[in-house]
Amino acid sequence: MVKVSIIGSGNVAQHLIQAFEKSTETELIQVFSRKKDTVSHLIAKEKITNNYNELKEADVYIISVSDNAISKVSSELPFQEKLVVHTSGSIDMTALDSKNRKGVFYPVQTFSKNKPVNFKSIPLCLEIENQDDYTILEKIAKSISDRIYTIDSPQRKSLHVSAVFVCNFVNHLYHIGNEICENSNIPFDILKPLIKETAEKVMLLSPNEAQTGPAIRNDHKTIEAHLAFLTNETQKNIYKIITQSIQENVKKL
Amino acid sequence: MVKVSIIGSGNVAQHLIQAFEKSTETELIQVFSRKKDTVSHLIAKEKITNNYNELKEADVYIISVSDNAISKVSSELPFQEKLVVHTSGSIDMTALDSKNRKGVFYPVQTFSKNKPVNFKSIPLCLEIENQDDYTILEKIAKSISDRIYTIDSPQRKSLHVSAVFVCNFVNHLYHIGNEICENSNIPFDILKPLIKETAEKVMLLSPNEAQTGPAIRNDHKTIEAHLAFLTNETQKNIYKIITQSIQENVKKL
Repeated sequence: MVKVSIIGSGNVAQHLIQAFEKSTETELIQVFSRKKDTVSHLIAKEKITNNYNELKEADVYIISVSDNAISKVSSELPFQEKLVVHTSGSIDMTALDSKNRKGVFYPVQTFSKNKPVNFKSIPLCLEIENQDDYTILEKIAKSISDRIYTIDSPQRKSLHVSAVFVCNFVNHLYHIGNEICENSNIPFDILKPLIKETAEKVMLLSPNEAQTGPAIRNDHKTIEAHLAFLTNETQKNIYKIITQSIQENVKKL
Repeated sequence: MVKVSIIGSGNVAQHLIQAFEKSTETELIQVFSRKKDTVSHLIAKEKITNNYNELKEADVYIISVSDNAISKVSSELPFQEKLVVHTSGSIDMTALDSKNRKGVFYPVQTFSKNKPVNFKSIPLCLEIENQDDYTILEKIAKSISDRIYTIDSPQRKSLHVSAVFVCNFVNHLYHIGNEICENSNIPFDILKPLIKETAEKVMLLSPNEAQTGPAIRNDHKTIEAHLAFLTNETQKNIYKIITQSIQENVKKL
């Protein structure tokens, strides 16, 4: 069985631990966590270490730490010639220390501590330095997900920027919608079916086909009324710039 | 059985026709459509008219036309003292002609022609001029949806602005994500699980709790790299303004 070791204990690491613990084709042999307690609810205590020198022989070491720590952690590993990958969307594969064989294992998903996810449906983007290592990386990827993609570092950078727009920024628009509702004593629940349907629509239609609302209709009267309604300057500016972008960049179908 | 008549043939009208045709507690007795063909695939031909003078006696007349036509259509109706409601999120109830009893019947959803929706889960926001009419309006609402809310005109205005943020603007962010991916030969499919999960997360967590990404982490290095990557000025401006709004308005949890 393929042996995997995870280095890190943050959100992504924790979700990976849970996914590998369920897998029957790979064995998660060890997790490195500075504070052992952070992951002790997810894996047997004897498999947790906080000492690099105690890391056991594995087929793949997955570094899942904050972006700015990846380089340092990879250079602190007390071994060489092993396959070491990171899980970041925004860091080049070359950031890993050259003493080991490099790769990337990037799950395109948003992870929060209190929200379980079905890992099987999460796209895993793989990149590899030596083509010989692809088979093993693909094998561990397939053991936890049904959606495997080969994505190089420049593509991954694009993908990560896209992910910021469709996830982080989208969530902030939910936040603004919530705030506007709260100010008028309207429950956020009333927006939830709309939020769900807006996401589900683009599973079937392109975002261009799915576009509705005053901006695409060029409904100046409603747009003016909305801008007059908004008293928060930041919200007003976001309203203006996205409305303008829809009018300039989306084809009226 | 309560008798309903729909005046209009656009997206919302068409989805309402389908919902009422399924209902066993209300009878859709007639649809007014300038071009009879527009709705002839949804309802029996003898129930379609393009002449206001042919409108039969109904308990509720639902005007579902474009915002700027609501007033005119309501004043052209050749009867009085009837219950007449509109379906718009952004138009005051008072826009309806005073010769009839007024109300609003606003479904909070995004409707596209080629995407069926489950009407039962769509929030219906009701407003009424005479409290005596509330029972009948609620009755027809309950016959097609499980989620009924009483929302007055100022609240409905807030709700509509919120809906623009969480639906129309969110969809445009999907569009930008799609464009960035296309430019790097990455299939949009790779973003779909992320889009779905981002929506599903706020069914359980508040948008504040669900916020992830470089902005909330104050990860300046990634933000700078993303801004350097974006060559499209509009995309760059949207990136900047939403990042700033997250940093200024979202609590770090």
